[in-house]
Amino acid sequence: MTNGFAAEREVIVLDNAGVGSSGGETPSTVAAMTKDCVEFCRALDLRNFDVVGFSLGGMIAQQLAFEYPDMIRRMILLGTGPRGGEGMTFTELSLDELGDPLALLKNSFFTASKGSKAAGQAYLERLKLRVTDRDAPVSMKTAGAQLEAIREWGSIPSTDRYAMLPRIRQRTLIVHGSKDIVVMPINAFLLAQHLPDAQLVMYPDASHGAQSQHAEVFLQHARLFLDG
Amino acid sequence: MTNGFAAEREVIVLDNAGVGSSGGETPSTVAAMTKDCVEFCRALDLRNFDVVGFSLGGMIAQQLAFEYPDMIRRMILLGTGPRGGEGMTFTELSLDELGDPLALLKNSFFTASKGSKAAGQAYLERLKLRVTDRDAPVSMKTAGAQLEAIREWGSIPSTDRYAMLPRIRQRTLIVHGSKDIVVMPINAFLLAQHLPDAQLVMYPDASHGAQSQHAEVFLQHARLFLDG
Repeated sequence: MTNGFAAEREVIVLDNAGVGSSGGETPSTVAAMTKDCVEFCRALDLRNFDVVGFSLGGMIAQQLAFEYPDMIRRMILLGTGPRGGEGMTFTELSLDELGDPLALLKNSFFTASKGSKAAGQAYLERLKLRVTDRDAPVSMKTAGAQLEAIREWGSIPSTDRYAMLPRIRQRTLIVHGSKDIVVMPINAFLLAQHLPDAQLVMYPDASHGAQSQHAEVFLQHARLFLDG
Repeated sequence: MTNGFAAEREVIVLDNAGVGSSGGETPSTVAAMTKDCVEFCRALDLRNFDVVGFSLGGMIAQQLAFEYPDMIRRMILLGTGPRGGEGMTFTELSLDELGDPLALLKNSFFTASKGSKAAGQAYLERLKLRVTDRDAPVSMKTAGAQLEAIREWGSIPSTDRYAMLPRIRQRTLIVHGSKDIVVMPINAFLLAQHLPDAQLVMYPDASHGAQSQHAEVFLQHARLFLDG
């Protein structure tokens, strides 16, 4: 997927603080992660760009567009949900699942159908293609901070539940799997209802890895969106 | 939009019984309209085709795919909803609104935004392009039968609300406006959740005429879907 984007435009893949090859400590709120991301962008003198955010990354993308609107041209939100979305405190999720990351990927990114399983296998093979400069695995400490950040983002405010979204004016493409078991699909619909300029695409028989399962058509949809 | 499809493939536009240039009487159920449509297809010896259905036409398309699965290759559902969908008995709609069809089109197909209004004006101009073989306006009698059919389709069954949808196996593209005031957008989401092989595309700042407002990108999405 990343290579598909990179075939046509410059792609910068960010390991945020404490993640993968980046040093530092991972903060435990989306707002603080967004600040780290902005510092990174400023260090590279990136002033106006398109942002693609997946899951927690999509939360950071929303916060970025909200707090730093001048930096963002267009936004692609993959498998993510609004602040205070539906079922986004992930009470059933535990760090123990990280003990078997391959099983976690297979079970949460793909469905039980034959077609989705085959797409999952192809995805896992693609993940092995890079042999140099591979990211270090996420540490338990970082994963804990990320889970805390997601839960804070997902907690439902007592008033003005989706008040942030009408204030995000950037043209947005929302992409989701219709059977996402991590971030419930209704969250993509809620984003599309409340963001003023968002197009929604939802793929069939796909879970949290929808954009990887449907990578080819997703890249075509993303191209139409970014170039349109 | 129709010309856009016709540039690449054969398009047959059906005036069903009692509608436009077709004689006969318009029946008052979607099932009976579907039978008329099937007779038309058999008369032309159409054995396997793609169907595009808008609004009431999308209900007929679903019934067609459900009852005559061998006839349908792929299906595009525009601004429609499932049997027993949300808010689809249209209790507030009355035939009086047909007195000013231009106002009805403007108000129900487009939103109040500047961009949508301009798209609506362009749409109305396009409607005038055809000068020969124009359809006769829909009669009050036909409109009454259509309204009755839609209301019957929209009535919520006491059990198995969406039982029909998992049995429609055709690959489907669902297209809807995120601000559709005629068929509530949640209905497109419900179709995507219950049809086993459906992709959903939802366009921003668009009402019941979403596919006409976003005609160019819609045609590109439809092409990707039909050729993919």
